[in-house]
Amino acid sequence: MIELNVDLGARAYPITIGAGLIQDGGLLRRATGSSQVMIVTNETVAPLYLEPVERAYAERRLATVILPDGEQHKTLASFERIISALLENGFDRGCSLVALGGGVVGDITGFAAASYQRGVACVQIPTTLLAQVDSSVGGKTAVNHPLGKNMIGAFHQPAHVIADTSSLATLDARELKAGIAEVIKYGLLGDAPFFDWLEEHLEAILALEQDAVTYAVRRSCENKAAIVARDETESGVRALLNLGHTFGHGIENVYGYGNWLHGEAVACGMCMAAELSAAMGLLGADETARITALIRRAGLPVSPPPGIDGDALHRAMRVDKKNRDGLIRLVLLRAIGEAFLTDDYPAAEFHRVVYGSGSG
Amino acid sequence: MIELNVDLGARAYPITIGAGLIQDGGLLRRATGSSQVMIVTNETVAPLYLEPVERAYAERRLATVILPDGEQHKTLASFERIISALLENGFDRGCSLVALGGGVVGDITGFAAASYQRGVACVQIPTTLLAQVDSSVGGKTAVNHPLGKNMIGAFHQPAHVIADTSSLATLDARELKAGIAEVIKYGLLGDAPFFDWLEEHLEAILALEQDAVTYAVRRSCENKAAIVARDETESGVRALLNLGHTFGHGIENVYGYGNWLHGEAVACGMCMAAELSAAMGLLGADETARITALIRRAGLPVSPPPGIDGDALHRAMRVDKKNRDGLIRLVLLRAIGEAFLTDDYPAAEFHRVVYGSGSG
Repeated sequence: MIELNVDLGARAYPITIGAGLIQDGGLLRRATGSSQVMIVTNETVAPLYLEPVERAYAERRLATVILPDGEQHKTLASFERIISALLENGFDRGCSLVALGGGVVGDITGFAAASYQRGVACVQIPTTLLAQVDSSVGGKTAVNHPLGKNMIGAFHQPAHVIADTSSLATLDARELKAGIAEVIKYGLLGDAPFFDWLEEHLEAILALEQDAVTYAVRRSCENKAAIVARDETESGVRALLNLGHTFGHGIENVYGYGNWLHGEAVACGMCMAAELSAAMGLLGADETARITALIRRAGLPVSPPPGIDGDALHRAMRVDKKNRDGLIRLVLLRAIGEAFLTDDYPAAEFHRVVYGSGSG
Repeated sequence: MIELNVDLGARAYPITIGAGLIQDGGLLRRATGSSQVMIVTNETVAPLYLEPVERAYAERRLATVILPDGEQHKTLASFERIISALLENGFDRGCSLVALGGGVVGDITGFAAASYQRGVACVQIPTTLLAQVDSSVGGKTAVNHPLGKNMIGAFHQPAHVIADTSSLATLDARELKAGIAEVIKYGLLGDAPFFDWLEEHLEAILALEQDAVTYAVRRSCENKAAIVARDETESGVRALLNLGHTFGHGIENVYGYGNWLHGEAVACGMCMAAELSAAMGLLGADETARITALIRRAGLPVSPPPGIDGDALHRAMRVDKKNRDGLIRLVLLRAIGEAFLTDDYPAAEFHRVVYGSGSG
């Protein structure tokens, strides 16, 4: 068991990483002292992991909300369902929410915790690789709006993050690969040695070898924790965590949430960011090839869905929280391990990447 | 023109108080440098004050949302309407919301600002006495849930509060009196000299004599700003601002939002808190009589609506953000100007106050 700390002063919290942690009732109870606990999970995760979590809190006043599975349910309606359940159970400001599941469950539950009575505690128990290495850490919570992803939300740091690496064994292969996209992101944006390590150990992670998985989760969380500690509310360096996400959110929006997984869209977005960086002469051809190769080896897409509407993609990218005054801001690469945020790039090259070299 | 400062470090902001400020385009423009401005107001306030505010921001990208008037519209649906309008206008994280209206408009708009893209700026232009002395200052934002008032919200400090005392001239007499309830509250909870001053100048305030009104708004804001600066998120002293509100929220909930104004319910709640404090031997009979007399002179109710269901009131009071582990916490009085938070009071006396001496 490894314990990291996200250093945010009064809002600091631990991340515990290890195999079998969901079965560790003592750990779960230490994560929250609340006498009122509401577990939020979904229909896929509940049959797998709800029982040991409910057992851990059996002596508390306990309630459970089971949401339908999928990004299309990351809505204000799901948020309201949690709030209603909290009120129906008479839970007060001293209660804790426990988010048991992937990024969608974590984001909705986090936003409900941020908003219920103006803020209650939230424990994150991420069960997907993507949630363990990215969405459960850092306090970003949100639901989607029909006009844009994650447009309604709050910064609300969790009380504790418990990443049980054993839970990855029940993840389907596609979800696992989607999570690896975010792992690769940390190497690309600021940790070249980790990128090198990933080139060496990708197959070990895909095979869920425990040492490799634990190191990948740990190094990702360490990278994220360091960035979040420097910039809690994304006024600066934290924007680099959006590498691949501006293109990726656009693809998700146009292609329909749920057709591509978030991590798949991010993987493709990172390739597009690399392509634009290369076209601008910032990134060498060899590095661009290494990026594409690693993403392809992980079984992830390196280009947008065939036939995607370039105009629609461009429009969708205009709705992004990084943008200012109509300019689309992008995270680009100077090298593997060196990302930067900019709105200064040649329009023609940007168009070529967005509209596709064949169809633009 | 008077300018106060709410001392919250990086989140500090000014409160400007004076006559005719809504007509001062320069002041309104200085309050936000955003190139994208969305005004949120309601159907009652728009015909009176929207034009000068729109004129002030005519050179900006400007959009306006006009909500229906009334506490029954302080809902997640109204919140969502603002978010949708922001997205339809393509507004980004650099935009500003301007809340033009009373406490309901201010609270909904503030929560939309807190949540849109995880937080954008909000300027408050309160047009009711209640909003000027209380709800616009301090960063509490919320919407109601059918099961409880202000149950969904955030702490999100405004960028600037502009209290135009001239706007009180268009307030109907009942709304003005309801606002005076919150003014009296500041005297009661921690400022005995202000309570004395109110006893002297109540009729001058009711007659909207400019000097008296300005002093009442200023002293109320000074009291609130000092408390908020000590306890931004209500972990301690800020709870005292809830004097009269636990009983009051219960009455609103049982009697139906909109039948009694918030300030009327708070006025009655302060009398009930005084009555319980007196029954416990904390507050002298003379002080209790002074409190009831001042509230009655302001044209405000000093006892619950006749025939109110005591059981329902008791149940409604259990849903309160101050409560912990099922105990109802109350703000009670040791003297005029000396309030305290407690869950230690004799059940029999509490019941007598809630169920009414005649019917209990």
